[in-house]
Amino acid sequence: MKAGIIGSGSWATALAKILTDNGRQIAWWIRNEDTIRYMQLRHHNRHYLTSVYFDTSLIQLSSNIEEVVAASDVLVLAVPSAFLEDVLLQLTPEMLEGKKVINAIKGLVPGNNLLINDYLSEIFDLPLERYFTITGPCHAEEVANEKLSYLTFSGLQETQAQSMADMFTNSYLQTIVNHDVIGVQLAAVLKNIYALGAGIAHGLEYGDNFISVYITNCFREMQHFLEAYGKEHTEAGQEHNYNASAYLGDLLVTCYSLHSRNRTFGNMIGKGYSVKAAQLELNMIAEGYYASKCLFEMNLEVGAYMPVAQAVYTILWQHLNPREAFLSLEKGFI
Amino acid sequence: MKAGIIGSGSWATALAKILTDNGRQIAWWIRNEDTIRYMQLRHHNRHYLTSVYFDTSLIQLSSNIEEVVAASDVLVLAVPSAFLEDVLLQLTPEMLEGKKVINAIKGLVPGNNLLINDYLSEIFDLPLERYFTITGPCHAEEVANEKLSYLTFSGLQETQAQSMADMFTNSYLQTIVNHDVIGVQLAAVLKNIYALGAGIAHGLEYGDNFISVYITNCFREMQHFLEAYGKEHTEAGQEHNYNASAYLGDLLVTCYSLHSRNRTFGNMIGKGYSVKAAQLELNMIAEGYYASKCLFEMNLEVGAYMPVAQAVYTILWQHLNPREAFLSLEKGFI
Repeated sequence: MKAGIIGSGSWATALAKILTDNGRQIAWWIRNEDTIRYMQLRHHNRHYLTSVYFDTSLIQLSSNIEEVVAASDVLVLAVPSAFLEDVLLQLTPEMLEGKKVINAIKGLVPGNNLLINDYLSEIFDLPLERYFTITGPCHAEEVANEKLSYLTFSGLQETQAQSMADMFTNSYLQTIVNHDVIGVQLAAVLKNIYALGAGIAHGLEYGDNFISVYITNCFREMQHFLEAYGKEHTEAGQEHNYNASAYLGDLLVTCYSLHSRNRTFGNMIGKGYSVKAAQLELNMIAEGYYASKCLFEMNLEVGAYMPVAQAVYTILWQHLNPREAFLSLEKGFI
Repeated sequence: MKAGIIGSGSWATALAKILTDNGRQIAWWIRNEDTIRYMQLRHHNRHYLTSVYFDTSLIQLSSNIEEVVAASDVLVLAVPSAFLEDVLLQLTPEMLEGKKVINAIKGLVPGNNLLINDYLSEIFDLPLERYFTITGPCHAEEVANEKLSYLTFSGLQETQAQSMADMFTNSYLQTIVNHDVIGVQLAAVLKNIYALGAGIAHGLEYGDNFISVYITNCFREMQHFLEAYGKEHTEAGQEHNYNASAYLGDLLVTCYSLHSRNRTFGNMIGKGYSVKAAQLELNMIAEGYYASKCLFEMNLEVGAYMPVAQAVYTILWQHLNPREAFLSLEKGFI
């Protein structure tokens, strides 16, 4: 099984490292030809995880996505979700026929509230049976440094998810398999919202005692949503153990990371910046910003009780005063 | 209802601040007469949370514990658990007759594996109905700074626990009530063991990805133990929501705190120091050290599957190599 990696950011680069460290041949789509030339010459990605050395004899590098797809049995999607549509619009359903897709993007397709599998199903007729996800707490920098990390591979059928996981398992990468392919994606979206909220709390000068209570209550809220969503969508409806790295672990690493963009962005909002001002100052919009809107709209149908996600949405999109929003949240925490 | 505080460390001082901020008269037992004189003169505890001002007109200060007990309807135990026996041996069952006790100590009675309520019942015949606990994520320093914190008051009867909680509730202190008076104490003991283990992992140079997975798996293990213990001891046997601040929240704040003594101690063990050397260097033994032994012995009876707590115990008490212990733990995490 040959994997083709789509994307060249830090997460794509980390995944390429893992596969080539395991001695696997890969195809790798990188949009920028300069980046490709630099890698061929210097064996490094010029822009991300620059310390990682690549054995380029294992890598078929190309800026032609059609070529990379044709050369691959499994496509690993690892572009930022904001660029996903642009990238995928270069493909056709025929090109994806028989291919498997591993989604390593943590997010929804922007502009519509679709999970990546729903989008792929709609546009490319990709059945859920050929769709897998990689989730879990995973700073790409730590993978680059070969610090032990845990990734969860999810698919409708665990045996198939296991064969995806097997390509990645090595001494610094432990893999876990489950069949909650919908729930893990939702958890990954939610954790960005909660991390942004943790940033807001930090900006409002709450302390460590409060943040730990905040995260605890976010985790409970996450489970409410996953369970309520599962009742509406049978494929996500089975019981799952949420005390696992893809759910709680990822929430923790994202909320406690000082380097998270969600947290940095939220911190500015808590300090009184507007969304626009924070965006200009940081030269980016955090994923949790879009995620909060998507989630709010999804939850109109699901109807889970989600005071924290709702507060983050209302602060960011309806100009609710952060201080007031948190004063009201405080009262409900246990 | 007049409260008497037993102890003058940082947690006792924080609790005294909360009660006097609420305008309540308290009695306060402080062993050292110099500390008492300083407080009467300067309105501060000379040694702990030195920034906190006390309105001494509300406080009956005394180095005579009998006097403080006699003046109080409710005793708040807040001495370090290592000194608890010494302190309590100054009392008699008669002195405690009709009194309520709120235990603010997070730990077991050293030397025997007794929960504080079991000890008080054995020595003073104190019935569980008159025993309450204060738990939850609570750095005393943040209470001193009036950063919003959450404390959980537990008692067999929630209405009574509520009346204890009401004495403490104020603008920076939110209280939660439950009836899991045994489980919250066990959770508080376990979290010290897990925080010590997080320190060991840190000393072994695991990264943030791993630590989040480690804590996730500790939380699952904590629930296993509480549930298994509950089956053996009916008073703890009811179903509880462990996604709450007294369980998960306290675990998070303790494991993620850089200042935690358990974490600092564990860090040295992970770096290869012996228990003896770490103790000499830090001039203290972390609570998790004793707790790991108590828990190990308690679990001989309970029989819960606790690989992390067992590993911490074996490293600290049986000279198991930390690296080897964690290599074996790694494989079981999800």
